[in-house]
Amino acid sequence: MDKRPIGVFDSGLGGLTCVREIMKIMPNEDVIYFGDTGRVPYGTRSRDTIIKYVRQDIRFLKTFDIKAIIIACGTASSAALPWIADESDTKVMGVVEPAARAAVAATKNKRIGVLGTGATIKYGKYVSNIKDICPDAEIFGKACPMFVPLVENGYTDSEATRIIAREYLDEMKEKGIDTLILGCTHYPLLKSVIGDIMGKDVTLIDSGAVAARAAYDFLNEKNLLSEGSEDGTYRYFVSDSVEDFSTLGSMFLDRPIKESVEKIEIEGF
Amino acid sequence: MDKRPIGVFDSGLGGLTCVREIMKIMPNEDVIYFGDTGRVPYGTRSRDTIIKYVRQDIRFLKTFDIKAIIIACGTASSAALPWIADESDTKVMGVVEPAARAAVAATKNKRIGVLGTGATIKYGKYVSNIKDICPDAEIFGKACPMFVPLVENGYTDSEATRIIAREYLDEMKEKGIDTLILGCTHYPLLKSVIGDIMGKDVTLIDSGAVAARAAYDFLNEKNLLSEGSEDGTYRYFVSDSVEDFSTLGSMFLDRPIKESVEKIEIEGF
Repeated sequence: MDKRPIGVFDSGLGGLTCVREIMKIMPNEDVIYFGDTGRVPYGTRSRDTIIKYVRQDIRFLKTFDIKAIIIACGTASSAALPWIADESDTKVMGVVEPAARAAVAATKNKRIGVLGTGATIKYGKYVSNIKDICPDAEIFGKACPMFVPLVENGYTDSEATRIIAREYLDEMKEKGIDTLILGCTHYPLLKSVIGDIMGKDVTLIDSGAVAARAAYDFLNEKNLLSEGSEDGTYRYFVSDSVEDFSTLGSMFLDRPIKESVEKIEIEGF
Repeated sequence: MDKRPIGVFDSGLGGLTCVREIMKIMPNEDVIYFGDTGRVPYGTRSRDTIIKYVRQDIRFLKTFDIKAIIIACGTASSAALPWIADESDTKVMGVVEPAARAAVAATKNKRIGVLGTGATIKYGKYVSNIKDICPDAEIFGKACPMFVPLVENGYTDSEATRIIAREYLDEMKEKGIDTLILGCTHYPLLKSVIGDIMGKDVTLIDSGAVAARAAYDFLNEKNLLSEGSEDGTYRYFVSDSVEDFSTLGSMFLDRPIKESVEKIEIEGF
């Protein structure tokens, strides 16, 4: 039993889809969330830049007495985690490995699609993680750089989003995949648009949610769950204006953010 | 006569629409361009963040022996320039004042529209600059947060862009404006989409181009034009990956970027 909070971070708001799942399956856990809204998006940055940002994000979370860190960001998990995993004495988990496992468990025809930011697709970590578990899987990646701005601006179900999504997904449909990883934690907000295009026979893997479930398994195995009966508490930190965070963040969490949101200077970490 | 280069900066690629005009009207001037691609977009940031970034951008350009600086960015000109204009001994010019003058010169019915990023519209500097010159003008501002990502991802003439643009511009049309400021230097790449929606009776003001012309007037008046007969030379600096800059930048400049592009660590300035 361990009452310390779990640290979760993302380039912005997307990681809240992971927090939503934590609230659901581990309602007694305390969470400290950092959204790097001052430097979002990560998906268009170079790997050097992403690694630098992720190190700072981890250093900030470690100023609290936390028991584990979830990188609830497809880009940071793909483009940084493999290079920095050994640097921390606190357990750091990403979204790629859990999503790869969930996809391999779900697929019947071993044809799996991966949607992600430019950097996520470029560094191919979903592909290599799936291949490690299921060497004969065929994997098709597609960078969807417009999805993050569309979600962050509330275009979760508009005709413009459908047009852009069809462009991204047309080749995915042609490949005959039966499982599709939403490899960026923003994309679950486009689940209905993506699901409509792909059809009901394609299983969508929500990378934020499966990362939360993997964190549960890890904490359970190591006897680190809080096991308290009190509801968990949540603290939110951002690196830019706190104004929009509560409104937009509530959309991601699917419940109102009533807690105060604090701004920090991430470059100082 | 002054052979020193002109410094130009933007949050990313948009400022190249200003450089394009410099190449046209001052072909003998040398230019040093900085695109803060590692921290783009500025338009969603808080004013404190934008001011911090702009101070660093100016400090970087001043490491060269330059004769003037153009902030070729609607957001930085609106949300930072008024607060930092007196800090530099080198002349610093933005896009807001020239665009306001051009709009007042162009309008017949004194009904002027302004399109810009969230921060640009919020700080209202186009409005106050127009009011200073033409107190009885009626001005209608509209934040268009999707335009920068659409342009940076090459959606300059797609159906999705037309749908989003119509949403942004419908209320502008209802207001009966005859002049529309493209208050972000990315927006000239959407000129044909915006022009089609607004109709040929609405004059579009290209803020990057008018800023270049205002810089010409300033340099001419102060006797600071190079007056050489040799073609100007161009140096490009960015704060993230140099890979995509030449390709995308050529689209903005409407000519190939053959010069090498250098990456700098802007946070060190």
